[in-house]
Amino acid sequence: MTLKMSVDDLARFMSAEFPQVADDFVVEDLRPMHLTIRLKIGAQHLRPGGTVSGPAIFALADVGMYLAVLAMIGPQALAVTTNCSLDFMRKPAAGADLIADIRFLKLGRVLAVGDAMIRSDGADEVAARASLTYAIPPALRGRKG
Amino acid sequence: MTLKMSVDDLARFMSAEFPQVADDFVVEDLRPMHLTIRLKIGAQHLRPGGTVSGPAIFALADVGMYLAVLAMIGPQALAVTTNCSLDFMRKPAAGADLIADIRFLKLGRVLAVGDAMIRSDGADEVAARASLTYAIPPALRGRKG
Amino acid sequence: MTLKMSVDDLARFMSAEFPQVADDFVVEDLRPMHLTIRLKIGAQHLRPGGTVSGPAIFALADVGMYLAVLAMIGPQALAVTTNCSLDFMRKPAAGADLIADIRFLKLGRVLAVGDAMIRSDGADEVAARASLTYAIPPALRGRKG
Amino acid sequence: MTLKMSVDDLARFMSAEFPQVADDFVVEDLRPMHLTIRLKIGAQHLRPGGTVSGPAIFALADVGMYLAVLAMIGPQALAVTTNCSLDFMRKPAAGADLIADIRFLKLGRVLAVGDAMIRSDGADEVAARASLTYAIPPALRGRKG
Repeated sequence: MTLKMSVDDLARFMSAEFPQVADDFVVEDLRPMHLTIRLKIGAQHLRPGGTVSGPAIFALADVGMYLAVLAMIGPQALAVTTNCSLDFMRKPAAGADLIADIRFLKLGRVLAVGDAMIRSDGADEVAARASLTYAIPPALRGRKG
Repeated sequence: MTLKMSVDDLARFMSAEFPQVADDFVVEDLRPMHLTIRLKIGAQHLRPGGTVSGPAIFALADVGMYLAVLAMIGPQALAVTTNCSLDFMRKPAAGADLIADIRFLKLGRVLAVGDAMIRSDGADEVAARASLTYAIPPALRGRKG
Repeated sequence: MTLKMSVDDLARFMSAEFPQVADDFVVEDLRPMHLTIRLKIGAQHLRPGGTVSGPAIFALADVGMYLAVLAMIGPQALAVTTNCSLDFMRKPAAGADLIADIRFLKLGRVLAVGDAMIRSDGADEVAARASLTYAIPPALRGRKG
Repeated sequence: MTLKMSVDDLARFMSAEFPQVADDFVVEDLRPMHLTIRLKIGAQHLRPGGTVSGPAIFALADVGMYLAVLAMIGPQALAVTTNCSLDFMRKPAAGADLIADIRFLKLGRVLAVGDAMIRSDGADEVAARASLTYAIPPALRGRKG
């Protein structure tokens, strides 16, 4: 399988479609079926004590998987999350960005399934893991048929 | 099982511990093992087209379950989410608040398990459902023994 | 939404398609979007100490949701489980059958989402809860269009 | 972290504690925080058409994670599954054994979290993936303190 969008394409897509959060995210690596994305931690992502909030961790996994799907199927903004299961295992390091490694386990006609391993920048151990399923809309499926 | 905190106690706790988001949430009903909470939708929760963002839905489920745990075990800010599995089923109505009904399925010494049914205000159908597990820290467990 | 199969239809379907396990299950109640099913516990479902095995609990949730889908869309054996998330909360009572209450949260063209609350026969508290997603195959979707 | 049980220890444990299913499973590799296990497919694991049943896939993931936990904490039969989330992605090959690769993401004092990637023997692609959480009982936690 080949990529239909580049890292630059994804950045332009984010800026155009999600301007309110586009600056928070940087795609750091992109290969077929894999994507690495950084959440640049700002005050809006933190909870008292410097912990990264749960919604920020969810957002990182969800945006990362979404961009990974787009990179594989093309720049349509219509794929939708149907399930996201998150395990929170360790408190992220205070003050460090979060890095998510996304990989696909399946990229089917109807469903894309993947997971995200999320670590504090520089850490070995996983802070959180997400399993995500995206539904690919019929219009796109038709176009691929 | 009896409640250790009232709706007002929960509101004061949120304002003191999570001032940056406390105004977004209103606990509307609280009974043993059940809690109903409203997310007052603002611009920060929306995506293009008026859809409520995934992170906002996650936050509603997570805050609601957290407050439900506190209401049962008392005002300690230490319980932590260990798992949250979200199914996204329908796009929330544009411009409507979201309401989550939280109920416990288990409130054990170590783990609390519950679910959240999330609807747009006024809607019958569920927009999203979350299953959540919280770990109750040892200090609290000890105090209960 | 109306039912396309009756309790008797479901029993005949199970006997024809899944003869090796059909006798283990009894549909006890069926209404649009709801189904109640009993697992008749036998030696093959038990672990040492009389506990019902995890695979037997999974099977109950999965068969129950499958039959609930069929009851709604008709007797096609092609719907497939795409996700099942199980929370195990309490040890089932030794020697008691298990009862699962299945309800749909969404019955869409592509995906059906529901949950199963599983109790020992006669018990109030939930032993296990499952969230399930089934994919409805294109052939059926086409027929419904 | 070092192993407290060997492959042979695990096989003896299974034969003693779970004689009814011990012969179905073979641990093929064991390293700290990783375990590979084979399900020897027999008629009891199959559904019409030669598909491996969902409960058999669940059992493989659950037994594999259980043995992986025991290998790390020692031969106590008390660790219990609290959550298992399964994604079913591809139909397993008819007539082939299933192989699960288990790895830990966290082995804490209270909870062990891991995942299982399940493939048909000889296949590259993942047929199913499970995320599992086990609770480690207080007696064992006390002994480790």
